[in-house]
Amino acid sequence: MSSDATPKLIMAVPKGRILKEVMPLFKACGILPEADFEDEDSRKLLFSTNHPELDIIRVRAFDVATFVAYGGAQLGVVGSDAIEEFNYTELYSPLDLGIGKCRLSVAVPKADLETDAPDKWSHIRVATKYPSLTARHFAKRGVQAECIKLNGAMEIAPALGLVRRIVDLVSSGATLKANGLVEVETILEVSSRLIVNRSAFKTRPGEVERWVESFRNAVHSKG
Amino acid sequence: MSSDATPKLIMAVPKGRILKEVMPLFKACGILPEADFEDEDSRKLLFSTNHPELDIIRVRAFDVATFVAYGGAQLGVVGSDAIEEFNYTELYSPLDLGIGKCRLSVAVPKADLETDAPDKWSHIRVATKYPSLTARHFAKRGVQAECIKLNGAMEIAPALGLVRRIVDLVSSGATLKANGLVEVETILEVSSRLIVNRSAFKTRPGEVERWVESFRNAVHSKG
Repeated sequence: MSSDATPKLIMAVPKGRILKEVMPLFKACGILPEADFEDEDSRKLLFSTNHPELDIIRVRAFDVATFVAYGGAQLGVVGSDAIEEFNYTELYSPLDLGIGKCRLSVAVPKADLETDAPDKWSHIRVATKYPSLTARHFAKRGVQAECIKLNGAMEIAPALGLVRRIVDLVSSGATLKANGLVEVETILEVSSRLIVNRSAFKTRPGEVERWVESFRNAVHSKG
Repeated sequence: MSSDATPKLIMAVPKGRILKEVMPLFKACGILPEADFEDEDSRKLLFSTNHPELDIIRVRAFDVATFVAYGGAQLGVVGSDAIEEFNYTELYSPLDLGIGKCRLSVAVPKADLETDAPDKWSHIRVATKYPSLTARHFAKRGVQAECIKLNGAMEIAPALGLVRRIVDLVSSGATLKANGLVEVETILEVSSRLIVNRSAFKTRPGEVERWVESFRNAVHSKG
């Protein structure tokens, strides 16, 4: 592809739940992906759009940030949770899209609340999908957090004796409640952002800025 | 749960494709999970079995190794790829279950084959779900591998200019072919293993050994 005179712009978006919230923004920006883009069962990764110069890749949420940071994509849509976890210097995040809202919280078994106040913690073990973000958060308030990386199912970890604390995304709170857990601290209010590869922003400013502006207008007119 | 006189044994198994191959082994071992265990859409994590002392958790493949290594489960079924990637000292892997067979391979764009022989590599950048395993493999033959961790979609990374090499699980090879990639090296022949938490093996030898023996018989009689 590097031999093309005008290489395409690639936008990376996350599979799953967030994609449904992205579609109205695409529509407002005049981006129409090819037909099977919303088919979650399709194993296809790369999709064309009605704009010949813009293609879309549909990858895992955590991989969106990596694809954009390393220049595999120039633009992306990803949660602030992934942005903060990876902390890539090559990512520029100019726009809050106001979708994919949830929070990253510390939760503990309800039974532990009375005997184990969070403000007394000094060294803790935590199960989380966000080991880097979690360790940094606790370090800031003088707590040493040994983080055990799990990709899912962390809400069951306390009952099985793996850990007594978890850090997980919380939306309605129903999952925590069903597992006898309660939130004791919010680490991050999460929403999806438009992200841009910094080099692309310098080398292809016209194209990139046009899309950022288009998404900015879409968010504001939706607001 | 730690207050129970006789805590349950927990076996961790991976969601998805491998689960179908595990079921005949469960049957041969006389393990009958509760009804909705095979319903992949169920968000339930913990399942009882016809053995009151044995429960099963269904988690992501990579998390099986972590749950067992940290004592959240005492037994597990997981691919040798995950075992090698994490390299946990707390895992004991006594039995090859002969299921989930595939290989972990290095692949490159077909067009690169003639100009870029793998035996000439000295410093490479690789996209992979297995950064630790990959770096160790290449270090052994004097190649420094900068690994970019992706959770999926690595087969598209070369075409997008992210990397020129990937390390990925290969089964039929159809995915590589569809993306213009060819295998140049096999890092690991993969199959699923029965794994045991080392402490559980010491503290609850009778129960644990009985299950290991039961699975060993199931594998052998399956032949």
